[in-house]
Order: sequence, then C-alpha cells, then structure tokens
Amino acid sequence: MYAPAHFTETDAAEIDRLWTAHPLAVLVAMTEDGLLANHIPLLRDGADFLGHVALANDMHRRIGADTPVVAIFNAIDGYVSPNWYPSKAETHKAVPTWNYQVVHVHGCLTFSYRDGDKRRCVNALTHHFERLTNGDTGWRMGDAPADFLQTMLDGIVAFRLRVTRIEAKSKLSQNRTAADFQGVVRHLDAQGSTVLAQAMLRGHKT
Amino acid sequence: MYAPAHFTETDAAEIDRLWTAHPLAVLVAMTEDGLLANHIPLLRDGADFLGHVALANDMHRRIGADTPVVAIFNAIDGYVSPNWYPSKAETHKAVPTWNYQVVHVHGCLTFSYRDGDKRRCVNALTHHFERLTNGDTGWRMGDAPADFLQTMLDGIVAFRLRVTRIEAKSKLSQNRTAADFQGVVRHLDAQGSTVLAQAMLRGHKT
Repeated sequence: MYAPAHFTETDAAEIDRLWTAHPLAVLVAMTEDGLLANHIPLLRDGADFLGHVALANDMHRRIGADTPVVAIFNAIDGYVSPNWYPSKAETHKAVPTWNYQVVHVHGCLTFSYRDGDKRRCVNALTHHFERLTNGDTGWRMGDAPADFLQTMLDGIVAFRLRVTRIEAKSKLSQNRTAADFQGVVRHLDAQGSTVLAQAMLRGHKT
Repeated sequence: MYAPAHFTETDAAEIDRLWTAHPLAVLVAMTEDGLLANHIPLLRDGADFLGHVALANDMHRRIGADTPVVAIFNAIDGYVSPNWYPSKAETHKAVPTWNYQVVHVHGCLTFSYRDGDKRRCVNALTHHFERLTNGDTGWRMGDAPADFLQTMLDGIVAFRLRVTRIEAKSKLSQNRTAADFQGVVRHLDAQGSTVLAQAMLRGHKT
C-alpha cells in the first residue's frame, strides 16, 4: 500500500481499535486461477486471526498453505472538499482529496476440518460478537439443539490467518495546517460524518 | 466471490447505487511481486471506471496492461444475532451471521501520463464529488492558480479500469422467513444501524 510517512499508522492501539471496530475483512488471495476475494469477519487470536467459511465456498480448496493472502479492514472514509480549508480562500492552492483509515494484514491461511478446531473458532467469534451486541444475554452455542449445531459445524471450515506483515494507513489531513485540519473536522461534523471527524481528532494530528 | 444464488445481486440499478454511494474502492492487483492493494475513489465512465494516483505510488509501475485487478466496493455491513429471529425462541435453530453488500469489479488498468487525460480525469471526479458535496458552489479546477494546478497534475497518473466482470452480493437475510427478516430489520434499527436496515428493506427480500 502506498503510505507516505505522515499517513502511516504506527500506533498499535489504534490499529487494534480499527480491526476490532470493523471486523468484516475482505480476504484477497493470489491463486493460480486469479484473484479471489471474500468478505469474512475476523477475530484476533494472539498474533493470528480466526475465521470460518462455508464448506461450499471453494476458497479452502483454492488457497494453499503458501498462497499469499491479504485481509483488508476498511474502517471509515470520506471526501474532503478544498472549500473546507480556510487557507483556500486566501491562496486557492488546494485540491480535493479523500480521508480514510485502513489496515492490511498480509499472511497465509491454515484451514482446519477438525470438529474441535471448528467449535473453538465458532465459540470464540460468537462469544466476542454476542457480548458486544447483547451483553450478558448473548446467544451461546449451547442454546442450539446439539444435532442442529453439529449440522451447522459440518457445513463450515475454520481457518487461522498467520500474519507476516501489517500495514496501516490513517489519511486524516495530518499534512494540513491546524486551521485547515479544523476546517475539515468542522465540515465533516456539519454534514453528519461525525465518526470520521472523531477519528481525525483521536490524536492523529501530527 | 462465494455468492449463493439467493445472495447474488443482479439488479443493475442497485449495483450502480452501491458503487456510487461508496466510491472509495480497494484496488487489488496480482503482481509479479505479490498482492498490491490501494484505496482509490473511482468514478464510472461509460463501461469503465476512472481514477488517479500519486506518481509516487508505484502501482503504475507494478501493474501492467495484462495484470489482473479487482476493485472492491464495500457498501454496508453488520453482525446479525440469532436472538433477533422470532423463530429462535421457538426452535433455537439459529446461528450468528453477517449481513453486507459488496461489489467486485474485475478488469485491467490502463495508465496515462498525458496531461489532457489527467485533466479530463481530475475534472470528471472533481465535478462529480463537488456537486454532491457543495452543489452549485462546488470547487472547480479553474479556482486554483494555473501553475499550482499544473504542479498538482504533474504529480499524478490517471488510469482507466476496463471492466471484464462484475460480481455483486447482497447478503441481507433473504434466506430467512418474513418474521425473522423483520426481526433483524427491527433490531438493526434499534441499535442505530439504520442504513443496513434500509438496505434490507430496499426491495431485496425475495
């Protein structure tokens, strides 16, 4: 990914926040038959990520142990008009751009067809997302009838993404003056793009 | 992309709506040196897409005329809890899932270093996004001093994405009963995920 130094995100806590808040990654693989892309929620597990796909999704047959993959987490983005820079009214030296935050996780996948691995994977993802969504009243695997759950598990493949490289970019007007930066924040807020405005204010002004 | 028939988006108007509403594509290329991914706003131009990148972004050197690329437009997504299905309380036969809409545009890139092509590209993108953002008071290329604009244009490369294949997926609980579908819409609305709830209601219940 093209990322000049001033847009490279190096804050580990911010990177962790980005993939946690935007867990639906697009997983792209470079296979012998071409590019293969699928959208899969991923959960950090130590230095790896966990996920699972339908057995009917042929990615587990097309992606080998050495196939390069990249999991792309798209956080937030928005257009930035030159009209929003106070300096524009004085110098007119401004052009449109786009602000965004993304994380690219490069690595390889290890698929598992073992029942134990699949149960651990599904349980970890379920526990994480149900706690976020429903707190203490979250759904648990044990809520489903055992034979139904087994049929569901038989229809999936679990995988582990072993990470070789992480690239993150926070393109958030850090290259502008403080006045122009605040102008962008103000206009984004005014048009309802508050999440992007908050990302800009979250300590990413150099 | 894995897309069972009931999740395959075939409505051309909806596909057009998705890449128009979410123009920041992640453009992934399968190069000799591995996967290369960059985030770039794209604008439909006839059957192609237009975009431009910084001259300092080496993707224009690493992507040849025959290099396969895919532009992935991520629209909207969200977790779906089994607790949201009325049927869950009766049968308990439900598991978590994720709803989302995405478009994958496969093709090849043609880069242009010609000043005229770059001006046309920038003008088309600027006109489109400024009109959306600022209406009649939108910024125009002519607002900037000519020498400044020339320096900016000298620092970019324009490209055209020639489309070979489009895949779109609307995974929006179409495989659930009407009662479960409405339960998901209701809970998404209640938690503030109104855009995803609206996407579900926008005529995509089979």
